[in-house]
Amino acid sequence: MIPRYSRSEMTDIWSPETKFRIWFEIEAHAADALAELGVIPKEAARTIWDKAGGVTFDVDRIDEIERETKHDVIAFLTHLAEFIGPDARFVHQGMTSSDVLDTCFNVQLVKAADLLIADLDALLSAIKRRAFEHKDTVTIGRSHGIHAEPVTFGLKLAQAYAEFDRNRTRLIAAREDIATCAISGAVGTFANIDPRVEEHVARAMGLTAEPVSTQVIPRDRHAMFFATLAVVASSVERVAIEIRHLQRTEVLEAEEYFSPGQKGSSAMPHKRNPVLTENLTGLARMVRSYALPAMENVALWHERDISHSSVERYIGPDATVTLDFALARLTNVMDKLLVYPERMLANMNRLGGLVHSQRILLALTQAGAQREDAYRLVQRNAMKVWNSYQQAGAASVDFLEELLADSDVRAYLSEDDIRDRFDLGYHTKHVDTIFRRVFGDA
Amino acid sequence: MIPRYSRSEMTDIWSPETKFRIWFEIEAHAADALAELGVIPKEAARTIWDKAGGVTFDVDRIDEIERETKHDVIAFLTHLAEFIGPDARFVHQGMTSSDVLDTCFNVQLVKAADLLIADLDALLSAIKRRAFEHKDTVTIGRSHGIHAEPVTFGLKLAQAYAEFDRNRTRLIAAREDIATCAISGAVGTFANIDPRVEEHVARAMGLTAEPVSTQVIPRDRHAMFFATLAVVASSVERVAIEIRHLQRTEVLEAEEYFSPGQKGSSAMPHKRNPVLTENLTGLARMVRSYALPAMENVALWHERDISHSSVERYIGPDATVTLDFALARLTNVMDKLLVYPERMLANMNRLGGLVHSQRILLALTQAGAQREDAYRLVQRNAMKVWNSYQQAGAASVDFLEELLADSDVRAYLSEDDIRDRFDLGYHTKHVDTIFRRVFGDA
Amino acid sequence: MIPRYSRSEMTDIWSPETKFRIWFEIEAHAADALAELGVIPKEAARTIWDKAGGVTFDVDRIDEIERETKHDVIAFLTHLAEFIGPDARFVHQGMTSSDVLDTCFNVQLVKAADLLIADLDALLSAIKRRAFEHKDTVTIGRSHGIHAEPVTFGLKLAQAYAEFDRNRTRLIAAREDIATCAISGAVGTFANIDPRVEEHVARAMGLTAEPVSTQVIPRDRHAMFFATLAVVASSVERVAIEIRHLQRTEVLEAEEYFSPGQKGSSAMPHKRNPVLTENLTGLARMVRSYALPAMENVALWHERDISHSSVERYIGPDATVTLDFALARLTNVMDKLLVYPERMLANMNRLGGLVHSQRILLALTQAGAQREDAYRLVQRNAMKVWNSYQQAGAASVDFLEELLADSDVRAYLSEDDIRDRFDLGYHTKHVDTIFRRVFGDA
Amino acid sequence: MIPRYSRSEMTDIWSPETKFRIWFEIEAHAADALAELGVIPKEAARTIWDKAGGVTFDVDRIDEIERETKHDVIAFLTHLAEFIGPDARFVHQGMTSSDVLDTCFNVQLVKAADLLIADLDALLSAIKRRAFEHKDTVTIGRSHGIHAEPVTFGLKLAQAYAEFDRNRTRLIAAREDIATCAISGAVGTFANIDPRVEEHVARAMGLTAEPVSTQVIPRDRHAMFFATLAVVASSVERVAIEIRHLQRTEVLEAEEYFSPGQKGSSAMPHKRNPVLTENLTGLARMVRSYALPAMENVALWHERDISHSSVERYIGPDATVTLDFALARLTNVMDKLLVYPERMLANMNRLGGLVHSQRILLALTQAGAQREDAYRLVQRNAMKVWNSYQQAGAASVDFLEELLADSDVRAYLSEDDIRDRFDLGYHTKHVDTIFRRVFGDA
Repeated sequence: MIPRYSRSEMTDIWSPETKFRIWFEIEAHAADALAELGVIPKEAARTIWDKAGGVTFDVDRIDEIERETKHDVIAFLTHLAEFIGPDARFVHQGMTSSDVLDTCFNVQLVKAADLLIADLDALLSAIKRRAFEHKDTVTIGRSHGIHAEPVTFGLKLAQAYAEFDRNRTRLIAAREDIATCAISGAVGTFANIDPRVEEHVARAMGLTAEPVSTQVIPRDRHAMFFATLAVVASSVERVAIEIRHLQRTEVLEAEEYFSPGQKGSSAMPHKRNPVLTENLTGLARMVRSYALPAMENVALWHERDISHSSVERYIGPDATVTLDFALARLTNVMDKLLVYPERMLANMNRLGGLVHSQRILLALTQAGAQREDAYRLVQRNAMKVWNSYQQAGAASVDFLEELLADSDVRAYLSEDDIRDRFDLGYHTKHVDTIFRRVFGDA
Repeated sequence: MIPRYSRSEMTDIWSPETKFRIWFEIEAHAADALAELGVIPKEAARTIWDKAGGVTFDVDRIDEIERETKHDVIAFLTHLAEFIGPDARFVHQGMTSSDVLDTCFNVQLVKAADLLIADLDALLSAIKRRAFEHKDTVTIGRSHGIHAEPVTFGLKLAQAYAEFDRNRTRLIAAREDIATCAISGAVGTFANIDPRVEEHVARAMGLTAEPVSTQVIPRDRHAMFFATLAVVASSVERVAIEIRHLQRTEVLEAEEYFSPGQKGSSAMPHKRNPVLTENLTGLARMVRSYALPAMENVALWHERDISHSSVERYIGPDATVTLDFALARLTNVMDKLLVYPERMLANMNRLGGLVHSQRILLALTQAGAQREDAYRLVQRNAMKVWNSYQQAGAASVDFLEELLADSDVRAYLSEDDIRDRFDLGYHTKHVDTIFRRVFGDA
Repeated sequence: MIPRYSRSEMTDIWSPETKFRIWFEIEAHAADALAELGVIPKEAARTIWDKAGGVTFDVDRIDEIERETKHDVIAFLTHLAEFIGPDARFVHQGMTSSDVLDTCFNVQLVKAADLLIADLDALLSAIKRRAFEHKDTVTIGRSHGIHAEPVTFGLKLAQAYAEFDRNRTRLIAAREDIATCAISGAVGTFANIDPRVEEHVARAMGLTAEPVSTQVIPRDRHAMFFATLAVVASSVERVAIEIRHLQRTEVLEAEEYFSPGQKGSSAMPHKRNPVLTENLTGLARMVRSYALPAMENVALWHERDISHSSVERYIGPDATVTLDFALARLTNVMDKLLVYPERMLANMNRLGGLVHSQRILLALTQAGAQREDAYRLVQRNAMKVWNSYQQAGAASVDFLEELLADSDVRAYLSEDDIRDRFDLGYHTKHVDTIFRRVFGDA
Repeated sequence: MIPRYSRSEMTDIWSPETKFRIWFEIEAHAADALAELGVIPKEAARTIWDKAGGVTFDVDRIDEIERETKHDVIAFLTHLAEFIGPDARFVHQGMTSSDVLDTCFNVQLVKAADLLIADLDALLSAIKRRAFEHKDTVTIGRSHGIHAEPVTFGLKLAQAYAEFDRNRTRLIAAREDIATCAISGAVGTFANIDPRVEEHVARAMGLTAEPVSTQVIPRDRHAMFFATLAVVASSVERVAIEIRHLQRTEVLEAEEYFSPGQKGSSAMPHKRNPVLTENLTGLARMVRSYALPAMENVALWHERDISHSSVERYIGPDATVTLDFALARLTNVMDKLLVYPERMLANMNRLGGLVHSQRILLALTQAGAQREDAYRLVQRNAMKVWNSYQQAGAASVDFLEELLADSDVRAYLSEDDIRDRFDLGYHTKHVDTIFRRVFGDA
């Protein structure tokens, strides 16, 4: 966790205080179930809640005990006993440390997933608002970085919306994957604890009972969780790179927000850098990288080894905190993105109308020209435009006017025929359909 | 694709013949829709099916044309025209190459996913059979590679079953993620083709229409698909490593199948190597590695660049063919796995009954011994057993007999009290419950 | 290996014919050493060379034998015996299959490394030629995709040269890392074969003797080798992305080659796509991904397991063939790259001279203006230029002229003072120094 | 950085205090060079050292200023000016922030590399000591986890020594790769600063001048550095996994240290878990994962973007701190490893002498038996031994005695002939040679 790439709501999930609170709840709920089953006295279960339910545990004190006992769960239980008194001996009956640790880790991941889903909701809402705002803002579509045909900026955003909406679905599935609880004892056999305890704790903690565990909850669940975060991060990268492209000096169709007062480098007013989206590109690399050790964690030996533990101390917080920060930052970027529709048009038009050449070609053939003749006619006019563009970055020759002035072209097409093919509406006529597909009829 | 790690059903999906067949179907279904919309003559659409519906395309001929045209889709269309004749001009109307290529790639991935799901079904069935066969086969549970408490071999297999069952669910979701069709033209605007064509082709090809595409189907879908294969591969590795452990000379609780005639190395009868599961471990590494470039493919520039294409030429076949082979090989391994229940018992017992020490400790305290005294009593007997084990790898001292002979122990516990704690049934009493959770009431 | 991304010189290294030839040489050289040591008759060693030294082995025949024996080395030895006759029993004395397989793999990797180093030499030569050609071609330097200050195109190429020169050094080290030979028997103890045989074969095959092997050559060597290829691939990606940026429609400062006759899309003359460098970007992702399984291969169990083998069947050919192809393709791209110096200048000048604003600021303060005043003066002129740029993508206001016309500026600076600060030579004065650092005094 | 996996010597390198100290030194040395060149007054350069050379900078104060200026280097320079006074205006003349940031990062990586090399030295020393201690400790060599032929434990350690010695060489090369300094201005042209300043600072900071930089030091250097750490980590994993195998209950040939007083789980004396090496396995996964984003950092856009920065804030500290901790932990493990030579022999002998079967086979053929007969004779005796082993995990039948009692065997071999083939010395006769190769003649 790097403080500057962290938000407190997410880092709180990974604080020792939160962890010990979750440990307590697991133990207290287990005690309830044990009492219900007659294994421990009902008053003992009540006492646990009464004496410690409202307590904030003393992390320093627990650390101090751990330095002696060299065991984190025992240190916690010892500290807990300081509040509960003699009934403390009824805590943790028949359980093993992993029952507490693994269930707690999953509770933390579920909380993290809930935050990430809320992050996605906020991001989706920001993208949707901007998408409708720019539903009809015409801009050039580019394949291979080369001007192709017109699209609208709203369509670009609708694409981003649909992608993050898919990511939301994936994240919900990933959340479900790690929302399990195991209270099954040393090697998962329930030898010393009734399976009904697990079922009770699962219910109480908002989890489902792990159908079959070893000493630990199986790590394919976590591999899938972190792999899903990696895919979400890749989508963050995609949008970030789109904005970085749009902000480059030669394109400048959009910019990350800067306040009117703010002036970039005062002497160099053009030096407004897309630093937020560049930062997001880097953060995406990190979140992606965490998927690998998570996958290598799956093949624990026999009923468990502890190799996954160090990995999870890193990636549990790092992956969720970083992605939470990235999603919030991206939401902010999308929310405030400066969009320059005039520049979009200007960029498209700098090619002097060449984006319409294909439609003219078709019109000529439909009007009876041989394919080869049509090509030649389009090309001789297009090349004039293109050459003027290539030299200076803005065409000084206009394709429409060249065509209108070419008598061979006019032999097939009237002025109206030609002007009709320069209609941008041709390219945007299905935008409403696509928006309905993506956003529904709202 | 490495031939020795390939099965023909899967490699067939990636053959040029299959690809061209899918291309044809996309074009022919699109023509149907175009005819229905009145864009092309209905007879033309019929002619396409009539003249080419039964044809096996000539890959060499298409390659030959491609060498001239340097464009694979045009080469195919040219070859197609050789069958269809003049009506060929109604093929591919308003479409762009990516419409065909991307939809075809997804059709191939869907077919691959279907095979992989079938592979998982076969694997699940094999594991289930063996799990019930060994539901009550007691074996030692190990954490950290160290003997812990008894489990059954069936429980180990139930764990594997549950894990692959989760993978099946994931694979179904991943299949859905890539089961889309895009026929949306040069930059995804449907400028030259009606969205209803896409909807028709999608239906006809068993896909859903991509709500919003650029020139291409968005690659977050494929990233998720390959990430899911990577998780499945990690589970393959887990089971493979379990078997490799069980087969090592000192453990030898299970072995990959060898026929009775087959004798390993004839002079060294113990030299039967777990080469299949070692191989699976390596294959898992490969399938896992393919998830990364798939994720890096997400952030294509603007409406598309072609950087994903080379990556997919590798990982499309490599990931699916390798995982298919791995799942089939694992199924075969599980199906025929030689299991040695006597050796499982023998290994457990080589520690002279020490696995029961914790229960004796509890019994002593429940019988009124102070915790410290109970410890001391258990320990002085346990250490004798352990020391005899450590020297030779098999205890020559028996824990039960030592306890029975220790008068201080007997002051608290009768012979029956002690013998009762050596009951393996204590550890297996919830196996049925766990099996019901995993396999249902079947 | 994807045929379209393969070159025959490299794929030949991985052909069965090459492999069997190397196997033969290892066996024959080993026989020489064994004869020298008196273990086998000298005539036998000679017979091996005489009877089989000129032979091209029959791959189909060997495959046929392998289908029976299920062992590739035995199949080869059986086939070899068909040429050698009775003396064949002196072949492979005291050796183990891994001796042949691992040494052969390293020979193949050494050959591959030699090709890759030659590839780098060709690439370096192409870059150097273009660097000197464009040593003084002024272009805008960009940070964050935003115009910063002038550089020369030659400097960009010098950077690429220096980077690939470092990669050459790394590749030489990586080559050395895998240039070892092991002929050490079943578990590396030389129990059945004298270490001097290993030393002889190493020398004869251009390798060094592995100081200590297990059954296999340690895989940290190969991990380092493939990690190095991954770094080289990342540098390929860097240059590829630079060119993709330079070719995008709005920048168009360079383009991948197209012949004068060639016209892109005939109707859309601007549609020349940087498909080669996009392809290189994808290939780089693949080569990078192969480093991971190579690293996971290091931790083989005990004296070896076979999990590395399947991985190496993939990545041995795939990584080297793909990188070889990528380097050759990049060389070709660099060699023929179309560079547009006028457009470079035009792009820089589209900002109306703003790149010089910082120098004017400094000149003002050096001439006695208060820092705040200097800022204000620069900024009020700069903003006019910038606003005219932002609207249309090309400044209609010229910074130099605005400054010359600003009497407050002129109070500090003469016309010459101002014009001097617009001198591009200021930025390029150290280009020769840098070139000397990179290319030496050549 | 996870505190429990961190050592202070390494974390100190990444503290803000260290960073600011390095920044200061870069600035002060640059001022010296600027003074020498006559760009700034010599007294100013002296004043910088005099007033701030002994200062510990106030991190909180710098953070406070950064919150205002939103620029870390400016915040530092402002704070620095508070010490230096008016001459502060001569600091940072003609430099750009990246000059300071990138050079500092490399200084930190060099310091980190030096620590890691020292870590390797300590590790090598520990391994060497144990290797000589166990040079002649016979143990079974295992391929595929199956008993193969005898080796010595010292040979296993010699292999580890050779591997880490190679890693030391790699790390030295990696250190050299990032030991560069860039003081080259906004886009690397030295427009505002003389290249001799860079050369002076490089020398003073123990670096070499970067031959050609953009705004930043090229990131292929860092990619190689982190890839090398990943390879070292893979070697750590290899040794860790070896020890985990040796410590498993059934093998128990070595154990991580526990003090004589220490008793594992008091009731379960066998429950000593290899938690340190399991932990190392997890840490290796993390260090390995950091190589990927480092490689993705190479392809920065044009003269730089800032996407690498966030990545390096994570992996700079995380990779070096984790690997430092891992190497120190591994050294400790090796240093104190409990080795059980008797158990090694016992394990080998549990197969009743079968490891010698191959030598008997050879002896029989050399004594004139037909190969088929020899096989049959060996096998009928071997199978008896093996069957007795397979049932209980320890052979109750002895191979040597069976052979001696087999009259058909004895027809070819005398008692001495047979006993000779059971000589372990046959397998260890080249241990000295191998040790000389690895450790030299020391």
